[in-house]
Amino acid sequence: MGKLLDSIDSPKDLKVLSLEELNRLADEIRQLLISFCRRHGGHLGSNLATIEPIIALHYVFDMPHDHLIFDVSHQAYTHKILTGRRRFYTDPESQKDLSGFTSPKESPYDDFMLGHTGTSIGLACGMAAQRDATGGKANIIALIGDGSLSSGPAFEGLDWAAEQGGNLIIVVNDNEMSIAENHGGLYKSLAALRASGGRSSDNPFRALGLDYRYVEEGNRIEDLIKAFRQVKDTDHPVVVHIHTRKGLGLGQGSQGQIGSTSMAQSDGQTAHMTSLPDLPAEGPVEANHWQDGLDSLNRLPNSRKTYGRMAMQALEARFSQEPGLTVISPATPLSNGIDPDFRQRAGNHYRDVGIAESHAIAYAAGIAKAGGTPVVATSATFFQRAYDQIEQEMALNGSAVTLLVFSTGVAKTDATHSGTADMVMMRGIPGLTCLAPTSGAEFLDMLAWATGPARQPVVIRVPGERTLATERAGKPIAPVKSDSTTAGQPWDRYRILQQGRTVALLALGDALPLGRDLADSLKASLGLKPTLVDPHRYDRLDEQTLDALASTHSLVATLEDGQLDGGWGQAVAAYYGPSRVRTLAFGAAKEFKDRVPQAAMLERYGMTVPAMTRAISDALADQASWI
Amino acid sequence: MGKLLDSIDSPKDLKVLSLEELNRLADEIRQLLISFCRRHGGHLGSNLATIEPIIALHYVFDMPHDHLIFDVSHQAYTHKILTGRRRFYTDPESQKDLSGFTSPKESPYDDFMLGHTGTSIGLACGMAAQRDATGGKANIIALIGDGSLSSGPAFEGLDWAAEQGGNLIIVVNDNEMSIAENHGGLYKSLAALRASGGRSSDNPFRALGLDYRYVEEGNRIEDLIKAFRQVKDTDHPVVVHIHTRKGLGLGQGSQGQIGSTSMAQSDGQTAHMTSLPDLPAEGPVEANHWQDGLDSLNRLPNSRKTYGRMAMQALEARFSQEPGLTVISPATPLSNGIDPDFRQRAGNHYRDVGIAESHAIAYAAGIAKAGGTPVVATSATFFQRAYDQIEQEMALNGSAVTLLVFSTGVAKTDATHSGTADMVMMRGIPGLTCLAPTSGAEFLDMLAWATGPARQPVVIRVPGERTLATERAGKPIAPVKSDSTTAGQPWDRYRILQQGRTVALLALGDALPLGRDLADSLKASLGLKPTLVDPHRYDRLDEQTLDALASTHSLVATLEDGQLDGGWGQAVAAYYGPSRVRTLAFGAAKEFKDRVPQAAMLERYGMTVPAMTRAISDALADQASWI
Repeated sequence: MGKLLDSIDSPKDLKVLSLEELNRLADEIRQLLISFCRRHGGHLGSNLATIEPIIALHYVFDMPHDHLIFDVSHQAYTHKILTGRRRFYTDPESQKDLSGFTSPKESPYDDFMLGHTGTSIGLACGMAAQRDATGGKANIIALIGDGSLSSGPAFEGLDWAAEQGGNLIIVVNDNEMSIAENHGGLYKSLAALRASGGRSSDNPFRALGLDYRYVEEGNRIEDLIKAFRQVKDTDHPVVVHIHTRKGLGLGQGSQGQIGSTSMAQSDGQTAHMTSLPDLPAEGPVEANHWQDGLDSLNRLPNSRKTYGRMAMQALEARFSQEPGLTVISPATPLSNGIDPDFRQRAGNHYRDVGIAESHAIAYAAGIAKAGGTPVVATSATFFQRAYDQIEQEMALNGSAVTLLVFSTGVAKTDATHSGTADMVMMRGIPGLTCLAPTSGAEFLDMLAWATGPARQPVVIRVPGERTLATERAGKPIAPVKSDSTTAGQPWDRYRILQQGRTVALLALGDALPLGRDLADSLKASLGLKPTLVDPHRYDRLDEQTLDALASTHSLVATLEDGQLDGGWGQAVAAYYGPSRVRTLAFGAAKEFKDRVPQAAMLERYGMTVPAMTRAISDALADQASWI
Repeated sequence: MGKLLDSIDSPKDLKVLSLEELNRLADEIRQLLISFCRRHGGHLGSNLATIEPIIALHYVFDMPHDHLIFDVSHQAYTHKILTGRRRFYTDPESQKDLSGFTSPKESPYDDFMLGHTGTSIGLACGMAAQRDATGGKANIIALIGDGSLSSGPAFEGLDWAAEQGGNLIIVVNDNEMSIAENHGGLYKSLAALRASGGRSSDNPFRALGLDYRYVEEGNRIEDLIKAFRQVKDTDHPVVVHIHTRKGLGLGQGSQGQIGSTSMAQSDGQTAHMTSLPDLPAEGPVEANHWQDGLDSLNRLPNSRKTYGRMAMQALEARFSQEPGLTVISPATPLSNGIDPDFRQRAGNHYRDVGIAESHAIAYAAGIAKAGGTPVVATSATFFQRAYDQIEQEMALNGSAVTLLVFSTGVAKTDATHSGTADMVMMRGIPGLTCLAPTSGAEFLDMLAWATGPARQPVVIRVPGERTLATERAGKPIAPVKSDSTTAGQPWDRYRILQQGRTVALLALGDALPLGRDLADSLKASLGLKPTLVDPHRYDRLDEQTLDALASTHSLVATLEDGQLDGGWGQAVAAYYGPSRVRTLAFGAAKEFKDRVPQAAMLERYGMTVPAMTRAISDALADQASWI
């Protein structure tokens, strides 16, 4: 790429540049990010907004002696480019080795691997406390976007910072929007601060006891350098509120006037979108969130979007008759098929509460208590932030809240966004009915039950790619129409899909297609026709079916697309523990895994069809040897 | 008690009273609360502060048509007395049937059962949204104490309230202190608001877009009635900030000038204590928190306080040499043996971050990253609020944070404070070393390791009452000195306490004394000497020992003082699943349980020694019948 960028191998190479050169460097990085995201996709809007701030931070401060702690790290691309990781962005082949987040394994300039939001301030407080305890002098800087500020941990961190005192610099990167849009009274105050050049009296930072500076031109390097120099080596916590432009550099021609500063929240939905002009993908994505790359062209919608859209369509048909039917999304709606046009039509039947998962559940519990029907939709990994509210406000209070859990299972995700932990988490909590549908039709049946007659806490794990593939191939495994909805508490009983002998395969949710393949393999290789069972529920066992299986089967194998330890398969094993029935549990290991390809993980976990066939064959042989 | 109170069977009986009578009623309730807490203990300070506000709320509003939602509900005694539950407070025999929290099972005036903090505003937002969706007119009121305001969920709720709009009244009961003391910049702003009669410019509520009123005399009924009448039927969210007096009515003679308004935060530790003059118990308790009753006199400190004090003593000895050794308590320090005098001596080695569990973990991860040694101490149930930070900031980042988990196990707790969920939660998270010491000495060994050579995430389940009882009786079960600290990763191997045959008992943590009793019972009743094993670790299995047991034992029984489903015993069962070894897992059912006596629960769970002896005997007989 550009000549200047080629000379930047570490932040110290920045420090010899003139202002004019710094600006040229920003332009070069901007072009690089656009071409990178065009190819691979990425968090384009937020990164385009933070090129100049990050250049200025590295110019003024001395990382890694000083520490720059990113929040969710969707603003870290420029930081990575400036800290010796340029080649990941310039060399298409290297991209696959790059974490989408900050990562201490990648660089000494990264202190943490962070993929959720709101904790940068707390982490920075801790690092500052330890610096003060040991007489250090480093500047500790947290960089947090306006979208993250609505989260409870961010507030708790801000509140504590003022009490702790000492050097701490909190850079609030205010690009006027969260993922879809910002929500909450806080954003009115931020808007008022922007409108008044930082002088508005209702200042949420000062109200928490913090010193405060405002930089109107948050993409002008000289202004940023001046502001950062003023706070460098401060002896007390200070917020530097910088006003940046989302998607800066994506000029005219793209949707929604990206690059203009006129995009107030009142501009409506389309103003909050961005997409590269030549990248139709399947529609524009939210400016601050993921931009699909060229490699996504002509790709069919994934299971998240497909089943999410089905769910929204089914609910929307009822909106006019059910005033309290409410879809709640703590940000990231689009990824789960909650499209902008749906949101617009839904009116108050849809609520994006911003990045505030704890609140999303308490809010839903309140709606349910008053007779409404709330549905909370987000990724498996983000429900973790509401564990306590799921346990207390939802489950303990018996609140008729339905959770739709997206993005689950063994998949090539970032370590921060694992999809293998959700079933272990949910099934550990008393009082939740946890369902794992194995077809789109059953998913909608379960949703209808949960938001209709159930009036109790229900968790539905949205079907994944395997289920979608069987449906797209016209080969669904489970019956299209579930017949169990008539009972008072449906899905209590497992569904026998194939009656066999000796070996029973219990394959949960998106593992069912794998179970069918395994059944075929056992028939082919051992001449054994196993029983194939669709449990479609994972919070409790169908003891009646398990007892019946015990009389004609000597081995019961469980398959689940999630973590084994603490999971449903272990509960089945324990149930059979005192009996003569042997058990084998197939599932994911308890481990962190960062962008490991799915096939490699299934291999490692012994979850391939050949490996499972072998394991079952071995178990049967061992059993035969001593009976 | 007094004549007026005898005539109040529901809030409508209030509405005919004169102001003079309302004041007399307040006096009568005050005397009742003091005598009640003298007898039974209770959250005295916070309830004494809210007598007049709750009388005024019920006088002005029309509950249960209007809704009054308590936060943690440590301010609900007067509400209960006024809503038909007087006899629980006047009749000593009835007290045992009374929930310490609001409870819909007790009364239609209670919307939720709430025992954690900060969610009242979110719940109220939800009820208000449903009211508006259905054209209702009720006033929705959230009552939240200043101590709860530091929690993330409270902030998320405040932030959302402003955006939602419509009728919502948030009463902030500001008695100038949290449990031990308030922490965070927010409290400086509250102090400035109090000092300025609500006119200070740094107003955290206005900064979140909320309307705001201030009532200086928050214990003067006429002022409260006037303020509540002004906001009744408001068409937008409004905060009513009332300044109340903690412990009002506990006049001179008690420690710390309780009842005086002069208790600013600067008054030091003793000013923040209250105890009834004739109740020495084991020292004063924090004013806003639990006041021990007469029934606690001469009682020995419980296991929480005993082992907590031991831990603090061990850490304190190292403070002068280790600048980064930091004990972090998200409120409630005293319950865990973190005494005021320790806190004072510890200086910056002790940090009470207030009710902000998410922040506590992120903060600790920051300290660890910078080389310090943080120890976070709180109840099992409160760690739930930091699930995501434990998974992301602590475990995924490999942060050298130690968690001390207090108040665990099957016990007669409120449903909101269960001690049976923690092991399931912690062991489901990858990357945590989870230890269950079985003696005080081993607890200290583990703490020394975790805060010394380990430099990794460690969870220690503080020993409970059974362990303490064996130690007090001079009959510890496990060796006093652990010999496993020398290895690189200690406590990897189970400890064989008694070598036997046929049956192996694996008894985890505080279930070990139960395991020994069971071993004795098996010997006595079946003439069988079982092997007794102390696993003292529950995040992973010692497969080497399990394999060795398999050769000489046909039945392995696990005992754990926690929930079976998702627990360690199920992992043992799954490990033996494909083998000929049978398993039996003893532990708690997955259920909510509210103040059920421990003996009744152990009976229900089949965890008594006779029941377990029978179960093992039956399993052996069944096994013999078909081998």
